[in-house]
Amino acid sequence: MTQLPFVTRIDTANHTLEGADNFSETRLKDMRSLYSYRNSNEDDATLETIVYRVSRKDVPTEPGELLQCITEILPGDYHGEFFMTKGHGHKQRECTEIYLGIAGYGLVLMQNENEFRFEELLPGRAIYIPGGWNHRTVNIDPQQYLLFYSIWPANSGYDYEAVIKNPFQYRVFRDTQGYRFEER
Amino acid sequence: MTQLPFVTRIDTANHTLEGADNFSETRLKDMRSLYSYRNSNEDDATLETIVYRVSRKDVPTEPGELLQCITEILPGDYHGEFFMTKGHGHKQRECTEIYLGIAGYGLVLMQNENEFRFEELLPGRAIYIPGGWNHRTVNIDPQQYLLFYSIWPANSGYDYEAVIKNPFQYRVFRDTQGYRFEER
Repeated sequence: MTQLPFVTRIDTANHTLEGADNFSETRLKDMRSLYSYRNSNEDDATLETIVYRVSRKDVPTEPGELLQCITEILPGDYHGEFFMTKGHGHKQRECTEIYLGIAGYGLVLMQNENEFRFEELLPGRAIYIPGGWNHRTVNIDPQQYLLFYSIWPANSGYDYEAVIKNPFQYRVFRDTQGYRFEER
Repeated sequence: MTQLPFVTRIDTANHTLEGADNFSETRLKDMRSLYSYRNSNEDDATLETIVYRVSRKDVPTEPGELLQCITEILPGDYHGEFFMTKGHGHKQRECTEIYLGIAGYGLVLMQNENEFRFEELLPGRAIYIPGGWNHRTVNIDPQQYLLFYSIWPANSGYDYEAVIKNPFQYRVFRDTQGYRFEER
């Protein structure tokens, strides 16, 4: 159990959560299988491209505690499909999550069994992701990074297999109109 | 259990949580006993002064769900003691809470048994209030409202008696320097 109050800060200049103790970078090579494009001869420089960064503040993973992180998804696409997070579900299926938009323009994709939903992520807008809904975020602004703040119960756990076993029904591609969905 | 994703929005123009379904106003008459000043003949207009407003989005009060609200504390003081929330603890003592500053300048007072702590509440700054810590927020800017966004486990429950049985060790008064603490 967390004993003493502490502080974090949304650092909009550095696109991080100040006070976080866990930092990760996900590159194209770490998630290439989640994209639709298939080419075994992709060049190394492309594979090293950073897609998103997460800075997370850890607390004991116990009921009643809350985890928080800042995610930055860089602008870009992989052969037309916008940069996005891997996406995940929660091991504790009753555990929800709130995403609060800080900067940029994105979409939150959500999948529960056969049901697909999405919501726009914009500064000041909070998406409530109920338990049982796998979630992925996509940066649909080709010019600017997407920044959002997440809060979720610390005992949620992560289920990354969930989005492989039950993939998101739609992919999001760059388009002359901005973006378009493609059913998988 | 919440079935479908939903959206709220921090409405910085109206100082509310758009999409909330529970609105409350707390006036001086509702919390006068929490202030140090004692005068049984206080005039009615003063007693009707709104101290703070809360707009909350309700969800089932079950483990794994998250409640969220926007609190606006108006600028002002009651005989020198700054406008503040009543303060409360959580019935489920393991339940934490996160306060994210949106606008204005405040202090979060926290009391756990005999231990007192405080943190500044500023835009983009998040205060993690661990389980067992009663919490109260004070608007220390005499000119501007204080706005903050709170997220906490929906099964926390409220314990308003906690701050009467074990009062905050310090009060916050208006001062030529800005503010000063007074031990009770």
